[in-house]
Amino acid sequence: MSNAVVLLSGGQDSTTCLFWAVTMFDSVRALSIVYGQRHKAEVDAAREIAALAEVPHDVYRIPVLGQLADSDLVRTETSITGDGGRPDVAMPQGLPTSFVPGRNALFLTVAAAYAVKHSARDIVTGVCQTDFSGYPDCRREFIDAQERALTLAMPSSAGPIRVHTPLMYMTKAETVRLAKRLECWHALRYSLTCYNGLRPGCGTCPACVLRAKGFEEAGETDPALSAA
Amino acid sequence: MSNAVVLLSGGQDSTTCLFWAVTMFDSVRALSIVYGQRHKAEVDAAREIAALAEVPHDVYRIPVLGQLADSDLVRTETSITGDGGRPDVAMPQGLPTSFVPGRNALFLTVAAAYAVKHSARDIVTGVCQTDFSGYPDCRREFIDAQERALTLAMPSSAGPIRVHTPLMYMTKAETVRLAKRLECWHALRYSLTCYNGLRPGCGTCPACVLRAKGFEEAGETDPALSAA
Repeated sequence: MSNAVVLLSGGQDSTTCLFWAVTMFDSVRALSIVYGQRHKAEVDAAREIAALAEVPHDVYRIPVLGQLADSDLVRTETSITGDGGRPDVAMPQGLPTSFVPGRNALFLTVAAAYAVKHSARDIVTGVCQTDFSGYPDCRREFIDAQERALTLAMPSSAGPIRVHTPLMYMTKAETVRLAKRLECWHALRYSLTCYNGLRPGCGTCPACVLRAKGFEEAGETDPALSAA
Repeated sequence: MSNAVVLLSGGQDSTTCLFWAVTMFDSVRALSIVYGQRHKAEVDAAREIAALAEVPHDVYRIPVLGQLADSDLVRTETSITGDGGRPDVAMPQGLPTSFVPGRNALFLTVAAAYAVKHSARDIVTGVCQTDFSGYPDCRREFIDAQERALTLAMPSSAGPIRVHTPLMYMTKAETVRLAKRLECWHALRYSLTCYNGLRPGCGTCPACVLRAKGFEEAGETDPALSAA
C-alpha cells in the first residue's frame, strides 16, 4: 500500500501533481500550507480541487512565513507585480521581491512530518526548474539533499522519504499536455494562479502571462477561461 | 564579521550554546520557536537569558507543530512524564510519546531562513546525541545532511549554511563544566528544563532527573537550586 502526500497550493502545477499522484499511489492526501492575507482564495481553490480529486485535505497555517519574507508583499491584498509568495511560482529573472528564503525547504519539512504522521513516505511537489530559475530550492539538486536530510530526520522505521517532482523538467506546455492526459482538465478550472487572487486570472500579472503562454504553446484553451 | 543565530529554547543546553556563540562569533541573535500551551514559561526563560547575554531575541510561534505531534501532551499543562515537546531534550529510551517527527529539521529550516534574513549563515543548536538517542534528528549525520540541504535551498550569495552543535558529543557533566568556563552560570538560574514548567524544577520529572545527574557528576550545585 503506497501512501503519498501532495503539497497543494491550489495553483495549476500542484493541481496537476495531485491528479498525477492519484494515478501513481494507492492512497493520497493533500496538504496546503498557507500564510499572509491571501489565505482565503488559495484555500478555497485547494479545497475545491481536493474534493474533485476525492482526497482528504488538510490546511496548515504558518503565519511565521510572513515574518520571514523579504518584503511585505505577501501580507497585502494590493496588486502584485512580482511573485506573491506562491509555493509553485517564481519569477524567471532573479529572485522575486517577496522571496521567503528556503520556503520549499520549509514546506517539504512540514510535509514530511505530516506524511510520517499519516504513515506515508512519499511527498509530491510541483516545483519546476525548467521555466523558473529564481528559487534555488526549486532545483532537483536541492530536492535530493532535502530528501536525504528528511530521511535521516525521521524514525528509520518510516523508511526513506521520497520527494517526487513530476514537473521538474517540463515546460509549461508539457505540463498542460500532462494535465490533459491525467484528466484533471475540469479541476484546472478551479486552480488559482493569478497573483491578484482572481479566477479566471487578471490576465496581466506575470503568473497569468506565464499560464497563458503554456496553454498557447500546447495548442489548448485554458479551461478556466472557457468556463468564464 | 561573523553573525550567528542560536536556537534558544530557554533550557540548560541552549542557554549554554548561546553563551558559547557569544564567545565564538562577532554578532549573535537568538531565536525561540514555540508552540503548544507551554509557551509562556519557556518564552519568559528565553527572554531573560537573551537579555543576560545581551543579544537580540525573536520569538516565532508555530502552532502547527502541535498538530504534527503524535500525542496531545504538548497541548496540555498537566504533569508530563515523557518528553514535553522540548527542542533540546529527548528521552533516553526510544521515542517520547509527544515526538514531533522531524522537529529539529523544522527548527533548523526556520532558523536558516531567519539567519539569511539577518545576513547570518551560522546556526547554533544544543542538540546532543550522547545522552539522548531517542530523536533521529539529534544525530550529527542528520545535521550534516540538513546543512547541505539548507545551503542548496538558499541563494548562493548567502554562502554555505553551517550548523554548529557544540554539545553534540558531550555528556551532561561535560556540558555543565563548559557552562562554568563560559561564565553562563548565572544565566543557568533562569533556564527552564522541567517538563512541568517549574523553575527551579519539580525534581522528579525525567528532565529534572537528567539535569540533576549532570550537575552531580560534574561536582557542581545547580545554580537554579542554590537560587531557590
